[in-house]
Amino acid sequence: MKVYLNPSQNDWSELLKRPTDSIADLQNTVTDIFKEVQQKGDKAVDKYTSFFDGVILNSIEVTSVEIQEAIEQVPIELKEAIQLAQSNIEKFHQAQKTEKVAVETAKGVICWQEKRPIQKIGLYIPGGSAPLFSTVLMLAIPAKLAGCKEIVLCSPPNKEGKINPAILYAAQLCGVTKIFKVGGIQAIAALTFGTKTIPQVSKIFGPGNQYVTVAKQIATNYGIAIDMPAGPSELLVLADETANASYIASDLLSQAEHGADSQVVLVTTDSNLISAVQQEIELQIKKLPRKSIAEKAILNSRFIYFKDKESAMEFVNEYAPEHLIIVSKEEDFYLDNLQNAGSVFLGNYTPESAGDYASGTNHTLPTNGYAKNYSGVNLDSFMKAMTFQKISKEGIQNIGKAIEIMAEAEGLQAHKNAVTLRLKDLV
Amino acid sequence: MKVYLNPSQNDWSELLKRPTDSIADLQNTVTDIFKEVQQKGDKAVDKYTSFFDGVILNSIEVTSVEIQEAIEQVPIELKEAIQLAQSNIEKFHQAQKTEKVAVETAKGVICWQEKRPIQKIGLYIPGGSAPLFSTVLMLAIPAKLAGCKEIVLCSPPNKEGKINPAILYAAQLCGVTKIFKVGGIQAIAALTFGTKTIPQVSKIFGPGNQYVTVAKQIATNYGIAIDMPAGPSELLVLADETANASYIASDLLSQAEHGADSQVVLVTTDSNLISAVQQEIELQIKKLPRKSIAEKAILNSRFIYFKDKESAMEFVNEYAPEHLIIVSKEEDFYLDNLQNAGSVFLGNYTPESAGDYASGTNHTLPTNGYAKNYSGVNLDSFMKAMTFQKISKEGIQNIGKAIEIMAEAEGLQAHKNAVTLRLKDLV
Repeated sequence: MKVYLNPSQNDWSELLKRPTDSIADLQNTVTDIFKEVQQKGDKAVDKYTSFFDGVILNSIEVTSVEIQEAIEQVPIELKEAIQLAQSNIEKFHQAQKTEKVAVETAKGVICWQEKRPIQKIGLYIPGGSAPLFSTVLMLAIPAKLAGCKEIVLCSPPNKEGKINPAILYAAQLCGVTKIFKVGGIQAIAALTFGTKTIPQVSKIFGPGNQYVTVAKQIATNYGIAIDMPAGPSELLVLADETANASYIASDLLSQAEHGADSQVVLVTTDSNLISAVQQEIELQIKKLPRKSIAEKAILNSRFIYFKDKESAMEFVNEYAPEHLIIVSKEEDFYLDNLQNAGSVFLGNYTPESAGDYASGTNHTLPTNGYAKNYSGVNLDSFMKAMTFQKISKEGIQNIGKAIEIMAEAEGLQAHKNAVTLRLKDLV
Repeated sequence: MKVYLNPSQNDWSELLKRPTDSIADLQNTVTDIFKEVQQKGDKAVDKYTSFFDGVILNSIEVTSVEIQEAIEQVPIELKEAIQLAQSNIEKFHQAQKTEKVAVETAKGVICWQEKRPIQKIGLYIPGGSAPLFSTVLMLAIPAKLAGCKEIVLCSPPNKEGKINPAILYAAQLCGVTKIFKVGGIQAIAALTFGTKTIPQVSKIFGPGNQYVTVAKQIATNYGIAIDMPAGPSELLVLADETANASYIASDLLSQAEHGADSQVVLVTTDSNLISAVQQEIELQIKKLPRKSIAEKAILNSRFIYFKDKESAMEFVNEYAPEHLIIVSKEEDFYLDNLQNAGSVFLGNYTPESAGDYASGTNHTLPTNGYAKNYSGVNLDSFMKAMTFQKISKEGIQNIGKAIEIMAEAEGLQAHKNAVTLRLKDLV
């Protein structure tokens, strides 16, 4: 834990820093596997599944029998929890639907904007110790609401050649159309190029380790869109004396348990809060199963006191946290002046884990300062805005002259001519 | 001109292709200049301005005196045309504003989404023979409407150390906050890292040659967002016997004059239309000042006849054109079934150049098949969606149990604990 009292702006750059991996080393590995999957398709996928996941599969597509088995294996209590989360996530993302925006900009010139679904999307769900079925909900629910036709999910098989039943349960519940037992770089490569078995998609969503992160970046060189660039997860708590130190400690620890590189920051205008939260962390951390991970993240955590709310706000805006908890009597001031954050949690009874699972907001959010320039995943992430226009004879007579003048001034005579020809016929 | 009659789906992949440059060669040049600008700032910028633009400037920032001079130089007729375009673009982009989306997903759980402006943005406007003041309108107007605080424009100086007056006029008209006489890779690098003179921005917009395109890609490795990946401009006309061959020829030529690599495609269900359009092209092309450019693009143009509207539609959706003109008695069918296009122009009196300049829609659009997965530039391109939530005591009691169960099933005990602590206090 590092404590900073009223740091001057000259020292902020250090405090705003995130750990940045050098991706150069990984890039060669990723590029090689991409080339092999592009050339050899399923054969290369199988090879790397065997290599990385230690399992040889007869078939990589999850069958309906496997899905049925999974449904039976998920405890009823977990099913109900997932269904509650599903309902809230659906409500919140459904509300994000926008109508066609139509404007007659000049008489006879009708312009409109419509959003139409991206047809084929890929979802990547990591394997490993934490089976992230919650991420299935966060990606598949808005994809389905958006109207994506093909929703392909890839997740690595375990040593028994299986995917965690809760992931399969969530996938079928939310309308995933195909599920493949493929993980890592080979999954992203397969979604990028398509193989005989795995369809090519237009956009890839989902978290992953640093190999998956680099693979998604490389996929963009092949015309595939991705949800957003990724980095280690972050929580910044902005609090004053109205905050409950024990709750804040629990929130910071929920962030810390994600990974040793998780970013944990407390910004406060109450200097007493820092030691109170630190004491609570020491008490609570002892009982955590993922204690050793959390300890590493807490070791690098930053506790920063500012003597006024303006400095605190400015620091938060410069940091642009993925998750921001605000517990303060100055809540309105902070809400009004907040420029950059992925998702914001207000008050003592709004833990970050609510947004991670069940409140309805999306948990796929911009890290690493990307909250300055990227949205978190939302309904629009699965669509693209298209524009339309229909101009009548009267309409082109109204704006034709302006087009001719501008086209000519830009030296684009053929652009002008397309209008001139039409105007001539209307004299 | 290449004509294809009822091509079978096996032959489509050739017809759907775009020219893809190898960016590997350019990448080294770009990376070197980026490093130099990162290390040496303005000094490196000046060096490359001298090298590429052949001019040494005392000051790269455009002064208010220079802007006043420019305003005086722009002919009144052009000013009026620009103002008409400005008004229409403003109307259409203003209408895209979305309200806060708020939902009480469960009793006591209030979630909302708000869009807030990206604070600092950079606009790149190419120099050269065609002074693209229209692109200034297309980028600066929505940036201003979105509420971006800093709108920085870079454009290369000509040999006299000046920027075209129409570009400066449009920039001041639309609320650009700073203008720099810097172009090419060095401009993108300066916006990426910031120099003493040029501010760092969070997102870079605008067209450019292949060096600028690669530079924008490289900028994304440094945490900067970009509007979209770029490729040569495209027009696909989808027409039947109701179309005026002369108008279509003029539209195809307006695309062709952009560059030798411009993509010009006619898809028709009326086999007679092909030769009629070809004859018109031959007539019209003779008179064009940019004839030699247009001829090269027309040489590679594709004229494709399909015997039914379903095949034509499927081909168009696979091609995903940047610009799509539809002139057909089957307009409704095509509109209903269209999946992928950047901007759509309907009927005989809606030339593409209307959207390029003055109808109100944006002309910064996805090329190279990116209409499958990217939006054209719109108001939201200058904002990011953020989510907020506030949960009451009752609210956390309503969804807390579900969070606990899900967190536990994902093996994230600290996530569960953040809820458990709060629920305990509420018993």
